Amino acid sequence: MTLRFELLHRDGAARCGRLHLPHGTVDTPAFMPVGTYGTVKAMTPAELEALGAQIVLGNTFHLALRPGAGIVALHAGGLHGFMGWQRPILTDSGGFQVFSLAKLRRISEQGVRFRSPVDGAEVHMSPEDSMDVQRALQSDIAMAFDDCTAYPATEKQARESMERSMRWAARGHAHYYRNAPPGHLFGIVQGGMHLALRTASLEALSTLDWPGLAIGGLAVGEPEEERLRVLDHTLPLMSADKPRYLMGVGYPHDIVAAVARGVDLFDCVMPTRHARNGHLFTSQGIVNIRNAQYQRDTGPLDPDCACSTCRTYSRAYLRHLDRCNEILGVRLGTVHNLHYYLELMRGIRAAIAEGRFDALAGRIMAIPRRAGPPVA
Amino acid sequence: MTLRFELLHRDGAARCGRLHLPHGTVDTPAFMPVGTYGTVKAMTPAELEALGAQIVLGNTFHLALRPGAGIVALHAGGLHGFMGWQRPILTDSGGFQVFSLAKLRRISEQGVRFRSPVDGAEVHMSPEDSMDVQRALQSDIAMAFDDCTAYPATEKQARESMERSMRWAARGHAHYYRNAPPGHLFGIVQGGMHLALRTASLEALSTLDWPGLAIGGLAVGEPEEERLRVLDHTLPLMSADKPRYLMGVGYPHDIVAAVARGVDLFDCVMPTRHARNGHLFTSQGIVNIRNAQYQRDTGPLDPDCACSTCRTYSRAYLRHLDRCNEILGVRLGTVHNLHYYLELMRGIRAAIAEGRFDALAGRIMAIPRRAGPPVA
Repeated sequence: MTLRFELLHRDGAARCGRLHLPHGTVDTPAFMPVGTYGTVKAMTPAELEALGAQIVLGNTFHLALRPGAGIVALHAGGLHGFMGWQRPILTDSGGFQVFSLAKLRRISEQGVRFRSPVDGAEVHMSPEDSMDVQRALQSDIAMAFDDCTAYPATEKQARESMERSMRWAARGHAHYYRNAPPGHLFGIVQGGMHLALRTASLEALSTLDWPGLAIGGLAVGEPEEERLRVLDHTLPLMSADKPRYLMGVGYPHDIVAAVARGVDLFDCVMPTRHARNGHLFTSQGIVNIRNAQYQRDTGPLDPDCACSTCRTYSRAYLRHLDRCNEILGVRLGTVHNLHYYLELMRGIRAAIAEGRFDALAGRIMAIPRRAGPPVA
Repeated sequence: MTLRFELLHRDGAARCGRLHLPHGTVDTPAFMPVGTYGTVKAMTPAELEALGAQIVLGNTFHLALRPGAGIVALHAGGLHGFMGWQRPILTDSGGFQVFSLAKLRRISEQGVRFRSPVDGAEVHMSPEDSMDVQRALQSDIAMAFDDCTAYPATEKQARESMERSMRWAARGHAHYYRNAPPGHLFGIVQGGMHLALRTASLEALSTLDWPGLAIGGLAVGEPEEERLRVLDHTLPLMSADKPRYLMGVGYPHDIVAAVARGVDLFDCVMPTRHARNGHLFTSQGIVNIRNAQYQRDTGPLDPDCACSTCRTYSRAYLRHLDRCNEILGVRLGTVHNLHYYLELMRGIRAAIAEGRFDALAGRIMAIPRRAGPPVA
């Protein structure tokens, strides 16, 4: 199955394009809301569509444990039918979660044996298992199963981990493509913060045909300048005509910095998780709606925002819902934060198309990064 | 302010009509979803409208404590503007909650002093305070502040409690109507399970002009036959040309039994609370979606239901969401349960209009009442 990726415009290293997937087209650079358990938390598929989401991410690790790939696969279209989302889906491989969430983990060349954090049952996941799950989920884009390198890691640790990931990637590739795959499998570049290992990882991957590549092993706790150093080294080595996905990133300014270097795809739990904690992205910075200063504030959350939350409700009401732990508060915050992210991506694409990406990036970079002063 | 209540059809003691309120018209018999803290839990106002809700209930006790009536009143339209719901609202008086939720309660003729369950602060609520809060909330229908009689209660306890409620009702009436009230104040018949006290309560209320009356002190733990005995005694004594509201009731079969006796208005947390616990009302009885039997069930929750949940998702997906404590599970269950209740009321009104209420009531009464056998 050939993946068609049209590059439409370039502005410096930034580019915008169109990714044609089995369930539809994705305009890039794109942000993928995270739908861990077959639901982008608090949202319906219809709401996601209305916000302009064109692709969501599903977590293979979580879905394999609950409800299990077999139950998802009973539904026509796999995960699409199960969750009622008919647009594209990317699934991660479970590799990252095995290393961050599983208990009593034992790694062998064969795969990883661990205790399920759900019920304590012993589970084994190999590259082949991950491919089987992702095939059953029928995602448009599947990801290679990797040994996610911890941060920090010595050169030796990072090398061994990267080399295992490369062997696992080759096994996964053979298994995923063994017969009529439901989608496309992306490889993942590893190598930690060690630039020579990033180069070696890309060389290892180049022996196989990947329709797209991801940069893994970032957004794992490293300082921003480390991440940018790895991106500055790695992105120019990646094929320019294939989509590039930076896994797990990030804040708006992180996304802008990565787009500036040539990244096309992003995912992050930030907008949805922050909404559940009352942290709301605005044109003036992150508003902590729990703050007492909003108690009597009848103005909209962000006067510059066109989302239904900002058009309908006051800050005082949003604060009240948060304080009372009302589900509607999470919903309205999630709608707003996802609108903010998807609007950011629309703005980025338009700016690249019109050759004014630098100016937009400068404005995004100037927005305060922490839950900040009151919005005027 | 005159309350216009059109009685359109009668079928036995059951009746259907139209209640004209400042924010719109309510077709009766009507069910009011409960929006305790200025939100019907998990729902947006737009979703409630789409389901056909014409009136919701707000809780004076809760809103007075959080965020406080003053903050709600900063919003144009009071509670309507605060929560973004422009259709009618009925507020209860806080009386029931003072007696069921408040701590260290001390009752005097003046009112009730108690500790807030939110922050432990000492709060005083008198009949006049309750009216002030309800006026600030700008509800279409306000309720008299009552001393809610416990169950069981001796004749002496029930008499003292009822007589205090009647004195408080008169004080509230004077206070609510002292100048341009935002809505209409309903009186509440008390008297516990003692029929002579119910008669005496109605006689006491008859000295003032009430646009509608409620039956209070039921749905407090009494057996069904006790409740029906009180309804059979009380309803024929109530003015036939004014709306009659049975507070806090109930299950579908409770509603049908009360409609059969001439009740026009209902409220209950059942559909919304049950949804949060995975109990979903269907044409075949209550389904406990947590049950393992639904694990691999790709059919709709209720094949006879036209709600968006039943049209879009499988039982296996609903069970999965519930098991993962996903907010979307609560949302989809709430949409379904409220649709079930509002569709029940539409069916009841149509049956009364067409003189076939008994047949409908028979069918509703035949539906199993407990979380039951699998839906076929």
